[in-house]
This record gives sequence, C-alpha cells and structure tokens, in this order.
Amino acid sequence: MNPKQALANRIEPLCQRVDSALSSSLETAPHPDGHPARLLDAMRYSLFNGGKRIRPVLVYAACEALGGEPARADNAAAAVECIHAYSLIHDDLPAMDDDELRRGKPTCHIAFDEATAILAGDALQSLAFELLANDPALAAENRLAMLLCLSRASGASGMVAGQALDMDAEEKTLTLAQLERVHNLKTGALINASVELGARASGNADPQTLAALAQYSNAIGLAFQVQDDILDIESDTETLGKTQGADLARGKSTYPALLGLKGAHEMAQKLHQLALDALQPLPQNTELLRLIADYIISRDH
Amino acid sequence: MNPKQALANRIEPLCQRVDSALSSSLETAPHPDGHPARLLDAMRYSLFNGGKRIRPVLVYAACEALGGEPARADNAAAAVECIHAYSLIHDDLPAMDDDELRRGKPTCHIAFDEATAILAGDALQSLAFELLANDPALAAENRLAMLLCLSRASGASGMVAGQALDMDAEEKTLTLAQLERVHNLKTGALINASVELGARASGNADPQTLAALAQYSNAIGLAFQVQDDILDIESDTETLGKTQGADLARGKSTYPALLGLKGAHEMAQKLHQLALDALQPLPQNTELLRLIADYIISRDH
Repeated sequence: MNPKQALANRIEPLCQRVDSALSSSLETAPHPDGHPARLLDAMRYSLFNGGKRIRPVLVYAACEALGGEPARADNAAAAVECIHAYSLIHDDLPAMDDDELRRGKPTCHIAFDEATAILAGDALQSLAFELLANDPALAAENRLAMLLCLSRASGASGMVAGQALDMDAEEKTLTLAQLERVHNLKTGALINASVELGARASGNADPQTLAALAQYSNAIGLAFQVQDDILDIESDTETLGKTQGADLARGKSTYPALLGLKGAHEMAQKLHQLALDALQPLPQNTELLRLIADYIISRDH
Repeated sequence: MNPKQALANRIEPLCQRVDSALSSSLETAPHPDGHPARLLDAMRYSLFNGGKRIRPVLVYAACEALGGEPARADNAAAAVECIHAYSLIHDDLPAMDDDELRRGKPTCHIAFDEATAILAGDALQSLAFELLANDPALAAENRLAMLLCLSRASGASGMVAGQALDMDAEEKTLTLAQLERVHNLKTGALINASVELGARASGNADPQTLAALAQYSNAIGLAFQVQDDILDIESDTETLGKTQGADLARGKSTYPALLGLKGAHEMAQKLHQLALDALQPLPQNTELLRLIADYIISRDH
C-alpha cells in the first residue's frame, strides 16, 4: 500500500467521527423560541464544504499517540474545526481577502450574504469554546488547560494576529523571518493547538511529550504553508479549488518568491525531516502523526 | 442622596476595576515576535469608548450580593465586556447595521478600517474565553460552568442568534412575542450571563439563588431594551451619542410602535417591579442590584 492510501485508510474513520461530532453540535444547540435557520444553515455550509479536516485528524492522531481513545478527542477535534471554519469565513469576506471561491464552491458570504457570514463565523467561534467546556469525559483541570490553549491560539496572540499581520503585508516584500512569523501565527498557532489539544485529551500528556509534539507541530505547520505557496504556483485552479496564482496577483510575499521554487521545495523537505526527528524519541505509536507529516508535503491541493 | 448619585458612587470603583482588568489583559497578551499594533489599538479603542459598563457592574453586583470579594469577579467582568464590545464592533459594520457613530465617536471600522474591525471583534471574543479559563482564584469546576454559560449566551443559541433574527426582522412588523424573543436573545442572553457569572464567581451560588437572579436579569434585560426603544424616540442625537430615530428610519419593530409610547413606559415600569420582586426573597445584600434596576428604566442615554 502506498503512503497516500495508507493515510486515506487511517483518516477516513476519523473524518467520520469529527463530522458526526460537528453535526450533533449544530443539532443539539438549544434554540429556545427563535430558530435562526439561515444562521445555522450558513454554519453547516461552512463546516461541511469538503475541507480536508487536517486539524481534527491531528487532534485524533496526537490523542492516539498518547494512548487515548478517539472518543476522548471528539469535542476537541470538532472545536478546532469550528475555529478553522470561522477563520475561513471571515478571511473570505470582501473587506478581507475578498474570495468568491473556496474549495470549488461559493464562499459563505456569496452563498448567503455578508451579514450572515460574519455572524456564522462569530457563532462558530463561540461553539468551539462551548464544545471544550462541555466535555464531561475529561477532567476539569484538563479541559481548562485545553480552553486556555485554544483561546490563546485563536486570538490576538495567535491566529487573528497572524491574519492582521498578513493583511498589513500585502504589497510589501517581507524578509524570510517576517514571513515565517506571519505564518507561525496565522496557520501555525492553530496547528500547534490541535496537536496539544489531542495530547491533553488523552489524559496522558506530560511536559516532555508536549515539548516534542510542539516541535513536530511547529515543523509541519510551517511545511504546510510552504507547500501552500508552492501549490499556488505549480497547481491549477481546478485541482486547488481556489484561484491559482492568487497570492502572486495580490502581491503577497511567498516562500517561492523569496527562496525560488527549488529553495521552497528544499525547505519543505527540511521541515518534514525536522517533524520526523521530533517524533523519533517518543516511545508511543506515532505512525499516524508521521503519515500526516508525509501527506503535508506531498499533497497536490 | 438621590438614587442616581447613590448608584454613581457605588459603580465608579467597579468601573475602575474592570477598566484596569481590561487594560492588563491587553498589555499582558503575549505577542511572540509579531506585534499587530493596529489590531490591539482597535481592540483598545472599542473597549474604552465611553461605554456604561452595565454588564461588568452586574457581574460585580451579583458577586457582592452573594458575599464574594470583587477581585473574584474581575476576570468575568472583563470577559462580558469583551463579548459586548466585540458584538458592537460587528453590529456596526457596513454589512450589518452600517453605523458610523457609537457613543458620539466614530465606530471601529470608521476609525480604523473594516478588516481591522472584523479582526478586533474576533480577537475580543477569544480574549473573553481566555480570561475566564485563566482565573486561578476560582475552582476549576466553577470556571467551567462560567465558560459554558458565557459561550452559550454568546453564540448561535444566544446573542448571535438574536442579532440574526434582528437582521431578518428589518422592514417586517413583529408581534410583541416575536420582538421579545429577539431581544431576549440579542441583549438578554448576555445580561443574564453577566448576573450568573457574577453569582458563580462568588463561589456561593446555589440553584435557588441562581433561579431568583435569572428572574431578575430576565426582567432588567427586557426593561433595558424597552427603555432603549423609548429613548430612540424621546431623546436627541447628542444625548444618545448615536443617531436619534435610527430604529424608526430602519423600519424596525419597537415597543413604542407596538404598544404606544405610554404602553412602553408602563411595560418598563412593570418589568422594573418584576426585577425588584425577584430580589425580595433573597437574604443577601441586593442593594446594588436594585440600584441598577432603578437606573435601567430612568436613564436618558
């Protein structure tokens, strides 16, 4: 079996798990009196738009590596996907990246309207924290550590900071260090949080293991972005499901622009190796975490 | 001393407390590498724009009524104000209510820009949950109950649902029951949460007291909205700090439109009495909660 097929077989049941957790979280949200159907439709549309579920799969993979049953990671997996989905909705808005296409389908504000898209994003963020707070299988102190991790990764010291720096950077040429800083915040913070949340959900996280996993997630988070930049040049709009060459058109700094296409490929390979090295000393079963690292630099969309 | 002065004397130190908690939460947010100064400026601008701090004061008042030191309520008070401030930023956006003036000053997207306003709102929401999760003075189970309360009050079964229903209702005539439903979600949910959070922060909340306080906060939440509708007609733009007659111009259903101005005043009085009745059986010191109920129906802006 090739590695791509091996990963597909491993992640399919995990994607089904998180889809089912996300579905029930939308169904069971209590709506005393008012049912804002359009709001819920927009939330559902954005959560189920063919996303690759990389972050939830990372949550499950880290939980599994530390010997936790997948059920312990369901709420955390759904929570990181809610944060991810909300960030895409808001990023696509006309005042932000102004994208009409996401994964080959109309973005939320096109399929619905701008006000509904803003509110659907807002409600998905609240839902993420509700899911983590309301996870009776996990010890209270553990849930709090997870809530703190996700709120920090999401806000003004994490993902939103990265998005703000990214907006500032349009039409500017960044240094390699500045570009890395933007991506560490914009994409890296939530990828790191996914791995940390999964590890904590297992109930078996110790500081050394968390530190090794943080090294792993730092490396794959950056590799993910380098590969994204490469695909923006090498792939086509149909495969990508979004407009090919969009970064270039927007005058964004990218790794291929700063390092050349060959240099960007080399950097992705180096980060891949760093991720595998970080897992090496762990006694646990890190097979799935390794498969994900392989996938991140070999994906074509 | 008249009741207005009595309240002013009581709430001044509480406003200072929450202002100081909000300031430190912005200062101490760790920004490894990237300092998105404009994002933080927009968050600060919106948190310190002369708001009346009614929700934080309710947090402190409920905590005090149950015998809790105010320090126990600092993070919760700051958290509800973060949620409130974020909701105002997003409500004012062009795709939503399209307001250029808030409390006599340019709204966030006018003072900064739309993208920054969207992101500042997003980051303030994350910050609210970070503050609650990171409050070592409170027992873990108690913090989790508070996180669950605030996330539910904020999202698709609370404030955001109310905002979505409110947008749907423009240019429609609602029944009294429908209008009440919109306001119970849009404004009421966060006011209820403020009182519940304060009560829980005290560490002394029991189910009966929480139920009585919920009755109180339901009544003042609705009274607040009735008074808002009355002021939209009776006050002037300068006193209000926002455009007088804006609801009317937008074709919104209001209590004076449905009940007449006299009927709306009577309803506000009735709700005021309901709030006081709910406090009556409580053995605790509910003076500040009573003063707030008085203020809500006597305020002129």
